[in-house]
Amino acid sequence: MPPPAQGKSPWAGGGTGITCYEVSLESFVSKRTLLPLLALLLALPVRADEGLWTFDNLPLDRMKAKYGFAPDAALLKRLQAATVRFSGGTGSFVSRDGLVLTNHHVGRGAIQQVSTAEKDYIRNGFVAATRAQEIPVSGMELMVLTATRNVTTEVLAAGKGLAEAEAAKARRNALSGLQKAEEERTGLTVQPLTLYRGGQYWLYGYRKFTDVRLVAAPEMKVASFGGDWDNFTYPRFDMDFSLFRIYVDGKPYRPEAWLPQATTPLANGNLVMVSGHPGTTFRQETAAQMAIARDAIWPGRIAAYLRRRAALAAFAATGPEAKRLATTARYGVENAIKRAEGMLMGLRKPGNLEKVAREEQALKARLGGDPVLASWDRIAEAAQRQKTLLPEAPLRENLGCALLGRTVTLLRLGTETRLPSEKRLPEYTEGALKATRDRYGNSAPVHLDLEQAQLAAGLREAQELLGAGHPAVQALLAGRTPEAAAQAAFQATGMADPVKRASYLAGGPALDQDSLVAFARVFEPLARAAQLRYQEQVQNVLDEHGGRIAEARFRLLGTSVYPDGTGTLRLTYGPVAGYPANGTLIQPFTTFYGLFDRAAGWGPEAEDGAWSLPKRWHERRSSLDLATPYDFAYACDTVGGNSGSPVVNVRGELVGLNFDSNIEAQAGYYIYDGTSKRSIAVDARAIRQVLTKIMDARHLVDELDGR
Amino acid sequence: MPPPAQGKSPWAGGGTGITCYEVSLESFVSKRTLLPLLALLLALPVRADEGLWTFDNLPLDRMKAKYGFAPDAALLKRLQAATVRFSGGTGSFVSRDGLVLTNHHVGRGAIQQVSTAEKDYIRNGFVAATRAQEIPVSGMELMVLTATRNVTTEVLAAGKGLAEAEAAKARRNALSGLQKAEEERTGLTVQPLTLYRGGQYWLYGYRKFTDVRLVAAPEMKVASFGGDWDNFTYPRFDMDFSLFRIYVDGKPYRPEAWLPQATTPLANGNLVMVSGHPGTTFRQETAAQMAIARDAIWPGRIAAYLRRRAALAAFAATGPEAKRLATTARYGVENAIKRAEGMLMGLRKPGNLEKVAREEQALKARLGGDPVLASWDRIAEAAQRQKTLLPEAPLRENLGCALLGRTVTLLRLGTETRLPSEKRLPEYTEGALKATRDRYGNSAPVHLDLEQAQLAAGLREAQELLGAGHPAVQALLAGRTPEAAAQAAFQATGMADPVKRASYLAGGPALDQDSLVAFARVFEPLARAAQLRYQEQVQNVLDEHGGRIAEARFRLLGTSVYPDGTGTLRLTYGPVAGYPANGTLIQPFTTFYGLFDRAAGWGPEAEDGAWSLPKRWHERRSSLDLATPYDFAYACDTVGGNSGSPVVNVRGELVGLNFDSNIEAQAGYYIYDGTSKRSIAVDARAIRQVLTKIMDARHLVDELDGR
Repeated sequence: MPPPAQGKSPWAGGGTGITCYEVSLESFVSKRTLLPLLALLLALPVRADEGLWTFDNLPLDRMKAKYGFAPDAALLKRLQAATVRFSGGTGSFVSRDGLVLTNHHVGRGAIQQVSTAEKDYIRNGFVAATRAQEIPVSGMELMVLTATRNVTTEVLAAGKGLAEAEAAKARRNALSGLQKAEEERTGLTVQPLTLYRGGQYWLYGYRKFTDVRLVAAPEMKVASFGGDWDNFTYPRFDMDFSLFRIYVDGKPYRPEAWLPQATTPLANGNLVMVSGHPGTTFRQETAAQMAIARDAIWPGRIAAYLRRRAALAAFAATGPEAKRLATTARYGVENAIKRAEGMLMGLRKPGNLEKVAREEQALKARLGGDPVLASWDRIAEAAQRQKTLLPEAPLRENLGCALLGRTVTLLRLGTETRLPSEKRLPEYTEGALKATRDRYGNSAPVHLDLEQAQLAAGLREAQELLGAGHPAVQALLAGRTPEAAAQAAFQATGMADPVKRASYLAGGPALDQDSLVAFARVFEPLARAAQLRYQEQVQNVLDEHGGRIAEARFRLLGTSVYPDGTGTLRLTYGPVAGYPANGTLIQPFTTFYGLFDRAAGWGPEAEDGAWSLPKRWHERRSSLDLATPYDFAYACDTVGGNSGSPVVNVRGELVGLNFDSNIEAQAGYYIYDGTSKRSIAVDARAIRQVLTKIMDARHLVDELDGR
Repeated sequence: MPPPAQGKSPWAGGGTGITCYEVSLESFVSKRTLLPLLALLLALPVRADEGLWTFDNLPLDRMKAKYGFAPDAALLKRLQAATVRFSGGTGSFVSRDGLVLTNHHVGRGAIQQVSTAEKDYIRNGFVAATRAQEIPVSGMELMVLTATRNVTTEVLAAGKGLAEAEAAKARRNALSGLQKAEEERTGLTVQPLTLYRGGQYWLYGYRKFTDVRLVAAPEMKVASFGGDWDNFTYPRFDMDFSLFRIYVDGKPYRPEAWLPQATTPLANGNLVMVSGHPGTTFRQETAAQMAIARDAIWPGRIAAYLRRRAALAAFAATGPEAKRLATTARYGVENAIKRAEGMLMGLRKPGNLEKVAREEQALKARLGGDPVLASWDRIAEAAQRQKTLLPEAPLRENLGCALLGRTVTLLRLGTETRLPSEKRLPEYTEGALKATRDRYGNSAPVHLDLEQAQLAAGLREAQELLGAGHPAVQALLAGRTPEAAAQAAFQATGMADPVKRASYLAGGPALDQDSLVAFARVFEPLARAAQLRYQEQVQNVLDEHGGRIAEARFRLLGTSVYPDGTGTLRLTYGPVAGYPANGTLIQPFTTFYGLFDRAAGWGPEAEDGAWSLPKRWHERRSSLDLATPYDFAYACDTVGGNSGSPVVNVRGELVGLNFDSNIEAQAGYYIYDGTSKRSIAVDARAIRQVLTKIMDARHLVDELDGR
C-alpha cells in the first residue's frame, strides 16, 4: 500500500498533473521523524486539544476532565466503521445504502474523469435522479479499516540480540512477513504501520471497494467559492461536498455503520470530533531541520510551484479543452503555494523557532549524557546536505511528469525485481511491489498534451537549477530546447493506453519503438543516482538519527502522547470556536446570508468571477433560509488528509464535513498553536438545504434521514 | 482656536473622560514636525494617492493623468462650503435646510449629553419626527471655513534681517497681529495656520454656529456593530451616522452649499474624494524618533490606556448609571488601545523603519554639507530625553482628570495672564487666551463621580511610574491612598457647576473653600515644572530642529508635496478598492446580507452581545433590500479627524460617510502603505434605506433628496 497522499496537498490533486509531487515532498522531508512537540516537555501543561490520536489510545480522561464527555467503545467502533479512506483524503458512510460523503475537492478528480466537454459536471454539478443514473468511476478505490493488530512484541522480538543495523533489517522483514501472513489469512489489504517511529508496530487491515459511483456534486463555483483567493481562509462560504456510492456485486453496499444526521442544532462552543487520515506532519523535526525548512526547503519549493503554475497557465491558454484539463492541476498548485506560504509564515513567526529550540534544550537536559544527544548534530549535518541537494529535486521527482514516472516504473519493474529485495529502491521491495504494480496498471485516463507540457516544464526547471552544463541536463536535452526534447519524448508513445501499457510490462516488442520509453531509458539512471544520493546522504541519516531521538522520547513518554500523522485513522476533538484575527474576533459560523454578501460585495465580474454564483443560486435564493449555518470553524487538530472527514457531535451524529483549515493553521504542520489554528467544515444543515432547495435532490436528503 | 482633536482618538472622545488625553498626546509627540515621507525622495515614483492635500494646492495634473478627472474650481468651492468642522471630526451639509451629516461616534458626546437614563438615545436611537422635536445640544459648536488668506509674504517679511530666534518671535507676532486684524475685519473666527512647518502661513476664517440640534441617530448597537472588537477592522457592518441641524436666529440655516445624493450607483474601482480635517500625523518624524515611538512611547501609552480601562471598568461596575456615564470614555480608551496597537504593528513591520532610514539617508545625501544635517542628531538626543521623561506624563496630563485640568486653567488664568505673553504657557498667550477661556466656560455637564474615579486612577498611575518616594507623589498623596486623596479633592467642589465656575473666575470668595481648587494649588506647580521640563528639553528641540529639516525639505520640494495634517481642511482621493489580507482579497463592499450573517454567525449572546441587533432590525428585515451596499473600503489617505467626512463621487455627489479605516491603516500615522491601507465609509444608499425602512424617517430622506 502506498503512503497516502495529503488531501488538497501539493503532492496530490486528483487524477492528473501534480500527483508527480507526491513523491517529491516525501523525498524533501523525512516522513519518519515523527513525534509531536507536545512530547518534548512533560513538565509543560498539555496544549488544548492538540493531538492526532489513534483510536486505541485516546486521551479519554483528559476529554472527560475538560468536556465532561469521552466517547465510549461503541461510539468509537461505529465511527471507525463509518470512516472511509480516499486516496489523499477521507469520507464517511452517511446512509445504510452505502452513500459516501466527502469533499468536492477530494472527489474532484473522479468528477472530472467522468465529465466531458459536453457534460461538464465540474462546472454544472451533477445529481443522479435515480440509482441507475449513478456514474461508475473507473479505477477509483475506497477502503475501510476493518481490523487492526498490534504486532510490536513480535516485531521487536525479531531484532532482539542483534546489532543495530541487523536488528532494523530483521524487524522490517518480520513486519513484512506478518503483513503477508495477515493478508493471506484475512483476504484484506493489509498495511504494515510503524507508529512512534518504532515505538509500536501495527497491521491495519482494510476492506477495499472498487465499484464506486458518482451520486451528486454541486457546481465547482460553490464548492470552492472564492477559488484560490479564499482557499485556506476563513470566514468562508464553500459548499465543498460530493456524494458517491459504493457498490458490491452490482448492488448498493450495506455498511457496518453509517453516520445519522444530527438531532440537535450545533452551536458555538459545542464539542465535536473528527475522524480521518491526517498525513505527514513535521512537528517532531529538530530546530536545525526547521531552520533549513524555513530558509531553503520551502522557499525552494514555492519557487518550483510558481514555475509549475506558469507552465500550466501557458498550457491552459492553448484552448478550452486544455483549460479544462489543466483545472485540477492548477487548483492543486495554487493550493500548494498558499499552504507553503502559510507554513513559512508559521516558521518565520517571531519566537516560534526559538520556542522549539528551547523545548529541544529541555529534552536534551533530561537525557543527560545519553549518546542520543549526538543524533541532533548528525541531523543538522544531513539537513545541510539536504539543502545542497535541492537543485537535484527535478531528477528525483520524474521531472514533474506523472507519465514519465510511470514509464520509469515500467523499466524498474524489469530491473529492480532482479535484485535481492533489500537492494531494491523502496517502492520495489517485496512488500511494496504489489502496490507499485497496481499504480502502474491504473486505468484512469491520461492526457498526453498535459503530460508533455509538464515534462517540458520539468526539463526547463532542471536546466535552471542545475545549469545547462550539468551532465544530466546535457544528456536529457541532447542539444535541444526543453520543449523540443519533451515533444520528441511524446512523439510516439503508447504509455497512455492501458492495453499497450500492460503489453509493455509483458515485454512486448513495441516497447523498443516507444519514444517515451526511449527518453526514460536516458532519464532513469540519472534519477536513480540522484535518488540514491539523497537516500544515503540525507534520508538514511534523518531516519536513523530521527529514529534514535524518537526512541529516546518514547522511552520517556510512551503513549501518553500521540504519534505524528501517518495517513492512517486518527481522532481529534475540540469545540466550535471563533478566533482572534484581522484585529477582531472571527465568527464561529458563517451563513447563507454571508454567501450572498460576499457575492454581492464583489459582484460577478471581479477576479474572473471568483465570487460569482451560478444562476440557479440567485433564482432560488428566496426559497432558502438564509440564517442557516453554512461553514463553521472549530479548534480541532486536523491537517491535510483530513479533507472530507466527518465532523460528529458527542452522540456520533454528523454535524459537518471537514474541508479545510485557516491560513493560521498551516503553521501546524510544524508548530501547533491552538489560539488561532482552526479547522473548517461545511455545516451538515447547509448540505441538506442545498440538496433540497438548489439541487432538486430531496431523495438524497430522505436517504440521509434513513427514510 | 485650540488644535482640533483627532476624531475617534485617544485624546478625544465626546464630552467626558479621556478628553484629558487630548493634551497628553500632543505633549508626547511633536506636532510641528510636519512633512510627508513622500517628500523625502523626489526621485521615487509618487505613491498611489497618498496625500492630505490643501484645497488650494491639489495635484490636479496627477489626478487627471491617473483617473482622467480632476475637480474644477466650482466643485471644490461647493465641497468646501458644504464641509463642516466638528470638534475632533468632520461633517457635511446634506440639505438646503442645514441638515448636517456626521458619524454617530462624532456626535455621540452630544447624543449622550441630551440623553437621560429614561430617554436613552444612545441605546434606542432617536428621530425627530418634526423640526420642533429636534433637540438643542448646549455648548455644541460647528464651524464652516468661509475664507482663507495666504499671509506668507507678510509673515516672512516680519522676520527678515533678524537673527533666528528674534525672527521666529517676529513672525509669531506678525501672524498673531494679522489674525486679530482679520477677526476684527471679518467678524469670523480666524485660525492662524502654519503649513509646511513655516513654508507657508495662512489665516483660516470660520463661521461659527452655536445652535445645533440633534435630528436623528440609529441605535448605538448598529452604529458601532461589533463594538470594540470590530473597531478599526474591515469587512465591517457599521451604520455609523447621526444627523444634526444648524439653526440661526431660531430658523434652520440655509447653507451656501450642500451635497446632493448620488445619481449613479457607486461601484468597485470608482474614484471618490474625501473632504475633511485630518489631524496630526507623524510621517515626517526621523528614523530615530520612530524607533523611540516604537520601543518606548507607544508601549508606554498602551500601558497607560490599560490602566485607564481597568479604572473605568471598576467605575462602571458600581451601578447602571455609572456604566452609562462611562460608556463614551470606555469606548474611547478601547479605540485608543487598538489604534496604538495598529501603529505599533506598522512601526514593527519588518523593513518599515529600515525604509524610513534609507529615505532619510538619501535626503541627507542631497543636502550635502548643509549644517541642517546636525539637526538629525539633536532630534535623536531629544527623543532619548523624551523617553526619560515618560514617567512624568501623568503630571503633564492633569492626572487624566478633565475637571482637574479645568481647575488648573482657572488658577493659571489668574497667574499666567500677569506674565508678559511670551513668558506664558502656550495656552495662555494672547492668541490662545480666548479659546482657553471658552473651554473653561463650556457648559457641557460634568459627572463628578466619573471625574473622581479618573483622578484616583491618575494618582495611582503617577505613584507607579514615579515611585512612592517621588516628591511630587508625596506632595499629592500626603500619606493617603490615591483613592482617599481623590475623595478629599472632590469632597466639596463647585467646579462642576457653570455658575460657580464663572464666579470663581471673577475671584469669588467661595474659591478658597473649594476642595478641588485646594488640590489644584498643590498640583499646578508640579505640573508646570514637568511641562516646562518637557517643553525645554524635548518639545523646543523637536520644534526647532524639526523645523530646520522641514525648511530644508521645503527648499528642495516646495508645494509639490502636501503638508502634514494640521486638523484643517484637506482633500484626499482614490478608488473604491478591496485589498489583500487574511490570506485572501477583502471585498470592497459589504451589504445588509453580511450584517445579518455576522449577527447570525455569532448569535445574540456572544461577547456581551457585540454582534446582536436591535429587535426592530430583525422585525423589519424582510422589508430591506439585503443586497444594498452597507459599508465600503477605498484607497484614500484619511486619518483621525476625517471621521464624518463626506465621501463624494466625481460629480461631488454624496456616496458615503467616512467613519474609520482598517487595522492596516493605523500604521499610516507614520508610514503610508497604499497596498493595504483603506478608509471605510457607510454607503449613502444604506443610510437612506435605514432611515426609510428601520427608523421611520422617510421625511428626512425626502429632505436629502431636496423634496
